Amino acid sequence: MQTKQVIERWGMFELTLLGPSTGNPYKDVNLQAVFRYNGREQTITGFYDGDGIYKIRFMPNVVGEWTYQTISNASELAGQVGSFTCSEPSAGNHGPVQVKNEQQFVYADGTSYFPFGTTCYAWTHQPEALQQQTLRTLQSSPFNKIRMCIFPKNYSFNKEETVLFPFNGSETDGFDWTTFNPQFFALLEERLLELQQMGIEADLILFHPYDKGRWGFDRMDADTDDFYLKYVLARLGAFRNVWWSLANEYDFMKEKTMADWDRLFLIVRENDPYVHLRSIHNGTKMYDHQSIKFYDHTHPWVTHCSIQHWDVTLAAIWRNQFKKPIVIDECCYEGNVPQRWGNVSGQEMVRRVWDGVTRGAFVTHGETYVHPEDEIWWAKGGSLYGESPERINYLRQILAEAPKNYTVMPHIYDVPTIGIEGEYYLQYYGLHQPLYRTIELPEDATFRIEVIDTWGMNVVSNEEGMSGTCRIKVGGVGDRAVRIVKMK
Amino acid sequence: MQTKQVIERWGMFELTLLGPSTGNPYKDVNLQAVFRYNGREQTITGFYDGDGIYKIRFMPNVVGEWTYQTISNASELAGQVGSFTCSEPSAGNHGPVQVKNEQQFVYADGTSYFPFGTTCYAWTHQPEALQQQTLRTLQSSPFNKIRMCIFPKNYSFNKEETVLFPFNGSETDGFDWTTFNPQFFALLEERLLELQQMGIEADLILFHPYDKGRWGFDRMDADTDDFYLKYVLARLGAFRNVWWSLANEYDFMKEKTMADWDRLFLIVRENDPYVHLRSIHNGTKMYDHQSIKFYDHTHPWVTHCSIQHWDVTLAAIWRNQFKKPIVIDECCYEGNVPQRWGNVSGQEMVRRVWDGVTRGAFVTHGETYVHPEDEIWWAKGGSLYGESPERINYLRQILAEAPKNYTVMPHIYDVPTIGIEGEYYLQYYGLHQPLYRTIELPEDATFRIEVIDTWGMNVVSNEEGMSGTCRIKVGGVGDRAVRIVKMK
Repeated sequence: MQTKQVIERWGMFELTLLGPSTGNPYKDVNLQAVFRYNGREQTITGFYDGDGIYKIRFMPNVVGEWTYQTISNASELAGQVGSFTCSEPSAGNHGPVQVKNEQQFVYADGTSYFPFGTTCYAWTHQPEALQQQTLRTLQSSPFNKIRMCIFPKNYSFNKEETVLFPFNGSETDGFDWTTFNPQFFALLEERLLELQQMGIEADLILFHPYDKGRWGFDRMDADTDDFYLKYVLARLGAFRNVWWSLANEYDFMKEKTMADWDRLFLIVRENDPYVHLRSIHNGTKMYDHQSIKFYDHTHPWVTHCSIQHWDVTLAAIWRNQFKKPIVIDECCYEGNVPQRWGNVSGQEMVRRVWDGVTRGAFVTHGETYVHPEDEIWWAKGGSLYGESPERINYLRQILAEAPKNYTVMPHIYDVPTIGIEGEYYLQYYGLHQPLYRTIELPEDATFRIEVIDTWGMNVVSNEEGMSGTCRIKVGGVGDRAVRIVKMK
Repeated sequence: MQTKQVIERWGMFELTLLGPSTGNPYKDVNLQAVFRYNGREQTITGFYDGDGIYKIRFMPNVVGEWTYQTISNASELAGQVGSFTCSEPSAGNHGPVQVKNEQQFVYADGTSYFPFGTTCYAWTHQPEALQQQTLRTLQSSPFNKIRMCIFPKNYSFNKEETVLFPFNGSETDGFDWTTFNPQFFALLEERLLELQQMGIEADLILFHPYDKGRWGFDRMDADTDDFYLKYVLARLGAFRNVWWSLANEYDFMKEKTMADWDRLFLIVRENDPYVHLRSIHNGTKMYDHQSIKFYDHTHPWVTHCSIQHWDVTLAAIWRNQFKKPIVIDECCYEGNVPQRWGNVSGQEMVRRVWDGVTRGAFVTHGETYVHPEDEIWWAKGGSLYGESPERINYLRQILAEAPKNYTVMPHIYDVPTIGIEGEYYLQYYGLHQPLYRTIELPEDATFRIEVIDTWGMNVVSNEEGMSGTCRIKVGGVGDRAVRIVKMK
């Protein structure tokens, strides 16, 4: 008798079965399994992995003994039964990220998750050595989320040939829109696992406009879109670190209507038993400022707002409008490329991240420095050259020390502040440079007031035993934050 | 026989008459004069100046011989006739400023007027020595427009006693809402003339909320508002350098409705034969970003948009929405006071002015440095301490050299640019810092391309003989503008 397989909570159980390889198994064969634990039941869809191999992946979320039984229209695949043990999660496995209240995120085990994302749209489409370099860079970076595309990217600085595609076929010969390339997905899955091991959430972009008809992934018909989406969901849904970003700059995809986006969202919702995070990211036309068009984030199938906007101070508007956590996934990138979205200084990048965070939002990093081989982080990964990551890391550390149930404090007039009244305050002054500010603190407690140089990454003044109406000596210079902590 | 009086074009002819001083002449006596030139006729309303003195002021706009005849319900004032000669304007007198097309301003004589304004809300309510200091400072400043209030101001850093008021009365005894104080107006008029001599337009704020019931000027009844407004228009309309700003932060004046503002605008329009510029300035609530409320600037009685907003990059939205010139009259001030609107750096102030200008808008300066006697420029005038005025002057010089019919060039993607296609381009990069940019210039002409350090106020690179597709070496640092001029 075989030893029972042990899968940790929020790990991945994978059942491999052999079945029909004739006809088109991607289309012809249905495969599901019902997973059961103590009266609880989850029906999970499997997928064809080529060469007569079928797989069903399952992420158990309860510790204990699970059983399963397969269902299929192929007799070889139907009626398979088995069981496994779900154990306590290992260190560093906190489960998938979920929304907490209307402002924040939390891992399934209750650990706070503050997204400090970065952007490498097409890093998994690069040569292997470059992908390895990206992984090494990520390992020593402050980032715990990455925005990345499933489809390859055809865009400035990123027009090279791509070798592997989700569909079978090639750029020159065209694609078979009825079958997938398991090799493509196997590589992507390897990357997802590597990210998972580093504690990085993969904000997977399911559609994007950076194709322009070169391969046609931006203009597949509705049946093909749906077919692709269901396959992706069956293959990747059991990775705990996956988020679904329906699209990047969805409004630039002229071939799709708003009704298409609604339909695609519903397909994701119906085919993801784990309720991973779901969002859709807008584009902005900078030249006339009138075409910024958000998808209606109030739809119940949108879990949080994934926004592109250069003015992160608008976070409060969006939160009031949508009542969901705000992630500003693009606010310009640190760099020096000609394009306006990719040439702000590291200092400005850091300001936007701090400003967003102290407004109760989260702001995603990206880097776009001109590179002799066009190895630009934002598109291809590789190395980071900028000045913002270490400052973002400094903020991440500060936030890790904040009380986990902090909220925005809009009643503190005209300085963005997060905290808990009478306990903790984190304010950001950014390009505002008052000589001083006053704050009303409780009379019956004492506080430590620290003025932080957010660029220099150090505390420039620290006053203890403060109480009541306090004067904060911001100092009349920019790039300052203030942390006020109740003393024990 | 007396020598005929000579008044220059857009100068001020003033007729003084003696009439009834009993009863309430402000309410009881009507006085007008019909001014005639070569078949042209203008009816001008006079005003009571106290002590039985009545005046009619007239700004002639055509050179030649004018005659007049008075009309009044008081027999002593009726039927007076006379004449004067209107001569060519003296140097520096270009007439009143008007709107030109939907983007710019022009003096009545066709000279371009680019507003480079500043803000000294209550400078005429300060002690005489401080007012003189303000005038000296303005004399050596780059500013050609000043935002200033008729009513005194009761606000942070500006809560002192005021001596003179438009109405008779005092803070302690209250005001007689049926009579005016000619002494108050005489002083204001002296200031208006001094500004005029310096080429500075007075953007006169007719109502504002910084009273809060202390004197009651923010909550007069509709009849009193109208009475006040008509008196102001009769007294001040003939000053060529007057603009009418209906209100500052009109939306913070809780006692007035939108219908009130419409009515007040119509009174101004009907009682100003010279068609001075008319606008109304909004407030912003910075803490939740949802209460920015513009008056509907599409109303025909609004000549241009007087906007308060921190994000001057939105100029194109407003122009598309309102089809009128955009003046961003508050975008935060250079300074270091605790309030968010008054503590950006000089560098940031300069960035906003440049950014607005290269988007075809205009941005008004203000300064709010903490001062031991609270002599803060933005409220009281006095001295300027900041770093932005000389940089604003540098921009003003650059703009003075631009072709006068420049327009915004939104087709030049994602760098704000004004100019004339194939002739002249002025671009501002600000906090965007590309290493390089390309621009398509005509093949059949040659151009000079200058990269300008907007903070250092010098040209950092200058390439001549450029043609066709050109690479602009912006240099990967911030605070850069580019000027491209067709060579003769």
